[in-house]
Amino acid sequence: MFAFMASKVRLFVEHPLGGGQSVPLTRDQAHYLFGVMRMAEGTVLSLINGRDGEWDATVVDAGKKGGLLVCDAQTKPLQMPPDVWLMFAPIRKERTAFIVEKATELGAARIMPVQTAYTNNADRIRIDKLRAHALEATEQCGGTYVPEVTDLEKLSKVLTSWDPTRKIMFCDETLLGEASALTQTDGGPWAILIGPEGGFSDKERGQLRALPYAHPVSLGPRILRADTAAVAALTLWQNALGDWS
Amino acid sequence: MFAFMASKVRLFVEHPLGGGQSVPLTRDQAHYLFGVMRMAEGTVLSLINGRDGEWDATVVDAGKKGGLLVCDAQTKPLQMPPDVWLMFAPIRKERTAFIVEKATELGAARIMPVQTAYTNNADRIRIDKLRAHALEATEQCGGTYVPEVTDLEKLSKVLTSWDPTRKIMFCDETLLGEASALTQTDGGPWAILIGPEGGFSDKERGQLRALPYAHPVSLGPRILRADTAAVAALTLWQNALGDWS
Repeated sequence: MFAFMASKVRLFVEHPLGGGQSVPLTRDQAHYLFGVMRMAEGTVLSLINGRDGEWDATVVDAGKKGGLLVCDAQTKPLQMPPDVWLMFAPIRKERTAFIVEKATELGAARIMPVQTAYTNNADRIRIDKLRAHALEATEQCGGTYVPEVTDLEKLSKVLTSWDPTRKIMFCDETLLGEASALTQTDGGPWAILIGPEGGFSDKERGQLRALPYAHPVSLGPRILRADTAAVAALTLWQNALGDWS
Repeated sequence: MFAFMASKVRLFVEHPLGGGQSVPLTRDQAHYLFGVMRMAEGTVLSLINGRDGEWDATVVDAGKKGGLLVCDAQTKPLQMPPDVWLMFAPIRKERTAFIVEKATELGAARIMPVQTAYTNNADRIRIDKLRAHALEATEQCGGTYVPEVTDLEKLSKVLTSWDPTRKIMFCDETLLGEASALTQTDGGPWAILIGPEGGFSDKERGQLRALPYAHPVSLGPRILRADTAAVAALTLWQNALGDWS
């Protein structure tokens, strides 16, 4: 379980996938498959592109600077996660990467870094790196869908143009809320909002409290780091309203 | 929220804590407080020792190689987590450290690395480092109790001498189980068991299946890494049976 000892290598490619489809490899991909993993022509691996499900593909040309695969059969259809977004304020680099990895494994449809009043590291966030982490996590967790990682935006701006049919589960120690409250609401689209390690500002808290579609949820009596809170909140949501039950 | 921007430094010490109690510092502690944090005599910080709750203490002697604090008032009583243990098979170093940090934040009473048939890194596990991670996480999460980190033992041996009044929640993709099943059992002592990334062996799975007090729980349709599974499982347990509700 919890494998990434899958016998077959899984590779994300940008190319369309389908029966008999040829898939050219980039230089980096060829280096990984033939240099690092030492695959020979005839080896079968799994391909995903985030749109066409998972396909078995055979290596037909293994070069130093490129290569070619041909798709055989589809092994999984595209499996979309539930319609839940994760919004979080960027923290230290490794922990931000961790949040993206975990949100992908736990089945978030979209990952949104948001800048709050007390976000410290927003200038240093590298969205391209976060997107690469989402791809890698999808390769490893057996998923066929890669969550979208959006550009950093200010939380206040995001909330100003919010679609009120998408509920917000927000995790803030200063507001009491029960996870059990989630099951008393109907399904539909949701977003989870994890506060920054410095807390929300009074203004932000006021803005959130005033939203009729925002539901505060408590994550227990101990102080959680933002990365722990992100995993815990997604777990509670998936268990109550998502595809875990 | 999710702070460790707490205004006051929290420090774990081995010494007893109580009103008027003097607390001598080790060389490392003195270096941290007076060298790194640049505290002067008269500064107030928080002390915990895992037994006597949390105390305000004042620096009365700040030296290069040692120092002295005096306890003022208790700021928190000892708060025990629920009686839940986390058993997991060691994985890569950073991820094992991460599991210990998260289990501490999420309120596990005991953390037990177990060697399974397919555990790869058991020889390289450093229990002393894991204990240090549990201490640091307690300092940061505002807790007053430090979970015990036990020495590595073989899972088969642990299960052979198991107290049958302690239920086991075990997370294995090959067994279907619902998290909702947790709420249908009574409380009492529990242990959570996270499988290794290579999966349980058939023999281990057979042994687990045969235990009347073992409850399989599913963690959703995607493959989770062991560290993600540990956080998710503790979250589900705390929410259903622990101190989150």
